[in-house]
Amino acid sequence: MNIGILGTGVVGQTLAAALAEKGHAVTIGTRDPAETMARETAKPPARVAYRDWQRANPSVQLATFADAARSADVVINATSGASAMSALESAGANALGDRILIDASNPLDFSKGMPPTLTVCNTDSLGEQIQKAFPRVRLVKTLNTVTANLMVNPGAVNEGDHTLFLCGNDADAKATVKRWIGEGFGWRDILDLGDVTASRGMEMYLPIWLRMWGAVGSPMFNVKLVR
Amino acid sequence: MNIGILGTGVVGQTLAAALAEKGHAVTIGTRDPAETMARETAKPPARVAYRDWQRANPSVQLATFADAARSADVVINATSGASAMSALESAGANALGDRILIDASNPLDFSKGMPPTLTVCNTDSLGEQIQKAFPRVRLVKTLNTVTANLMVNPGAVNEGDHTLFLCGNDADAKATVKRWIGEGFGWRDILDLGDVTASRGMEMYLPIWLRMWGAVGSPMFNVKLVR
Repeated sequence: MNIGILGTGVVGQTLAAALAEKGHAVTIGTRDPAETMARETAKPPARVAYRDWQRANPSVQLATFADAARSADVVINATSGASAMSALESAGANALGDRILIDASNPLDFSKGMPPTLTVCNTDSLGEQIQKAFPRVRLVKTLNTVTANLMVNPGAVNEGDHTLFLCGNDADAKATVKRWIGEGFGWRDILDLGDVTASRGMEMYLPIWLRMWGAVGSPMFNVKLVR
Repeated sequence: MNIGILGTGVVGQTLAAALAEKGHAVTIGTRDPAETMARETAKPPARVAYRDWQRANPSVQLATFADAARSADVVINATSGASAMSALESAGANALGDRILIDASNPLDFSKGMPPTLTVCNTDSLGEQIQKAFPRVRLVKTLNTVTANLMVNPGAVNEGDHTLFLCGNDADAKATVKRWIGEGFGWRDILDLGDVTASRGMEMYLPIWLRMWGAVGSPMFNVKLVR
């Protein structure tokens, strides 16, 4: 499958490496590929400069946001939340078309120090803003409630027995994504929280997730819904 | 132990009944006890009028907010979040003193329809507002992330194997509350999320909790942190 990943950070790199390893044709989108390749230092929390990562992952292509979206069967928004909308605008509604867009981003605002706040919450969400700005896209919000290494390897925690949330307006797109990340990464417990407005809850979960990280001392954890 | 519970709703009733059954001397605080006893109908989501509940739970006392606080070893804020601050102001800083105040409330705003939004979030929280308004009180935020019946009976779900969160500025008060709800109700997995600012995350968890309720079809569920 052709997969376009928007964002060259830790989430984009982790998803790209895992998907390429499984034989998918992965293209990472960035604003200016030449500028990204020229960058000599890592953008935290990434630990290596993109070009060094690229050298270690030669099967992954780097392209503009628009080209990454246009060639893809599925697009994944793996940008930092603060730059999500401008990345998608740079890709453009034509390139995005009516593709499935997996939105794994969180609208975290680190500009006011730690812990980060959210740029949007309570009566709106980034997921909803993206769906509204690109109404043809079939947005499925998921993966945003776990750390990148766990997104692609749920078995690393509690033998994979924990819960991933998912929401969106398009039932077919949700079923496809559920099957795809289930088979692709090994997620067994994926809970559909409803339409795209559930993005509010999924994004507002971040502050308690960050506190759990602090209490646990590692981001390699998740929650399991029990009833 | 003498326990003062602020709030005559479902949470207050459920906590009061469970604690009275365990032999504690429980006083429920309300703004105007005569008015509360005169009310003929239930305030939703309560199913029975307070006076009918009171008749079935004769060992529980009803008093003003101030009297309920003054006679208590531990005070529990079980009001709806929207009325929490006015209930505590009605109790007064003198009556509250330096008591442990378990804050089980959530700042839910139902006035704009369903699903409710939060009256405060992101850069502040109800827990912080209460601690700031009553600086002598030793506030411990907990119990607010599960439904009332589960607060007092965690064993009803997954044999009690799931996580309760807790935060606050006073380490001794947190240790006391942890031991007290552990021994009293059977909570085994209580995670300390840090100082009172963790109330933000614990309250902002409500929107995803409400969506989980919708997906599960019952509020008798919780999450278990797995690592």
